[in-house]
Amino acid sequence: MTTRKLFELCGTDPARVFSPFCWRIRMALAHKGLEAETILWRFTEKSAIAPHRSDKVPVLIDGDTSVADSWVIANYLEDTYPDRPSLFGGEGGRAMARMLNWWGDTAVLAGMFPMIVADIHALLGPEDQAYFRSSREPRFGKTLEQVSADRDKTVEDFRKALMPMRLTLKTQPFLGGATPNYADYLVFGPFQWARVVSPFKLLKQDDPVYEWRERLLDAFGGMARKSPGFEV
Amino acid sequence: MTTRKLFELCGTDPARVFSPFCWRIRMALAHKGLEAETILWRFTEKSAIAPHRSDKVPVLIDGDTSVADSWVIANYLEDTYPDRPSLFGGEGGRAMARMLNWWGDTAVLAGMFPMIVADIHALLGPEDQAYFRSSREPRFGKTLEQVSADRDKTVEDFRKALMPMRLTLKTQPFLGGATPNYADYLVFGPFQWARVVSPFKLLKQDDPVYEWRERLLDAFGGMARKSPGFEV
Repeated sequence: MTTRKLFELCGTDPARVFSPFCWRIRMALAHKGLEAETILWRFTEKSAIAPHRSDKVPVLIDGDTSVADSWVIANYLEDTYPDRPSLFGGEGGRAMARMLNWWGDTAVLAGMFPMIVADIHALLGPEDQAYFRSSREPRFGKTLEQVSADRDKTVEDFRKALMPMRLTLKTQPFLGGATPNYADYLVFGPFQWARVVSPFKLLKQDDPVYEWRERLLDAFGGMARKSPGFEV
Repeated sequence: MTTRKLFELCGTDPARVFSPFCWRIRMALAHKGLEAETILWRFTEKSAIAPHRSDKVPVLIDGDTSVADSWVIANYLEDTYPDRPSLFGGEGGRAMARMLNWWGDTAVLAGMFPMIVADIHALLGPEDQAYFRSSREPRFGKTLEQVSADRDKTVEDFRKALMPMRLTLKTQPFLGGATPNYADYLVFGPFQWARVVSPFKLLKQDDPVYEWRERLLDAFGGMARKSPGFEV
């Protein structure tokens, strides 16, 4: 029996957990061979995680400890379970993963967000929809539908921004090297987010990044692939 | 007496060695505490490095071994001198540095190249100038002077592209962590290239990337700062 629990974001369908940050940690937990029960959480359930000093997920509860923020949780797991497979492959990897995490946030996550934002809205219940629209539309200065409307064009820039990753994957199967580590999960989290919420094809099939995503969908017994999502 | 030698790029002034790739390796050698005599090399001296199966610098000669390509040389140094300070901080760092190296090539080096390309030309002798202009202008589809002309505008996009690095430096002094490693040198190489060849100010003084560059100019007894360059 585990006392480990992870708050994970969903909408009306409890099977579709879709936060990119939660998926980073779901993959990191699997990498460490650690189980964690899911506590389903919705955008407007701020009070459920307030006791853990956070207003966003993921929040990990591990026995008497609670930890918020995906980067902090990844470091917590690495330090708390040092005898399990390493998430960073050493201290150099931990330092460099900090930058890759920011690259993942700015180039990958923020890059795909406009293209899937209207699809996210469609998965939410009425209360969450109102919250999502009123909090996200001011960021863009237009409606969610307007933001996603030109995604056939936007996707070209997104694919270009993946070039450093694409070039890397030409000589090694994972960003972490011969096997995946947190460098991969921090980028895969946003891709799995998009796959769960949107039918839009972010990648071309002949892209090394597409093949890399396939390998991570298959990792840990196909854990991410088994999670309901679209064929992308 | 060392038998180690590094081919490094210069123009008419033998004191101004300016290849971004050579500077990566010059910093890596200093990190490892290794000396290497400079063999000055100019763009059109292809025959001097042909015996080492390369048409570009850096080429490192280490005893009976010669190694070309900055990434290959960095790995050679890490593997050949494992008891010296590590360039990657472990195998995770080595794998992630591969991606940071591509980020450095595409976002940093290729980002600054248009802004300094005309200044590079000015440092070359007549034969190298002819080679440089005829090989680089077709890449851009305009003259070198036209390419650099709108750099006051181009620099804004360049600075935006540094965001993942800037955010990282808000919580750690170097990309490699508490102390610099190859993750830093692979980005610093292009910055030192620009500093040696061009008076153009790529960074604002209040940018964390500016402060980071200052720290690396001071590293190894101010090795890079002592190399002739502009106040940037």
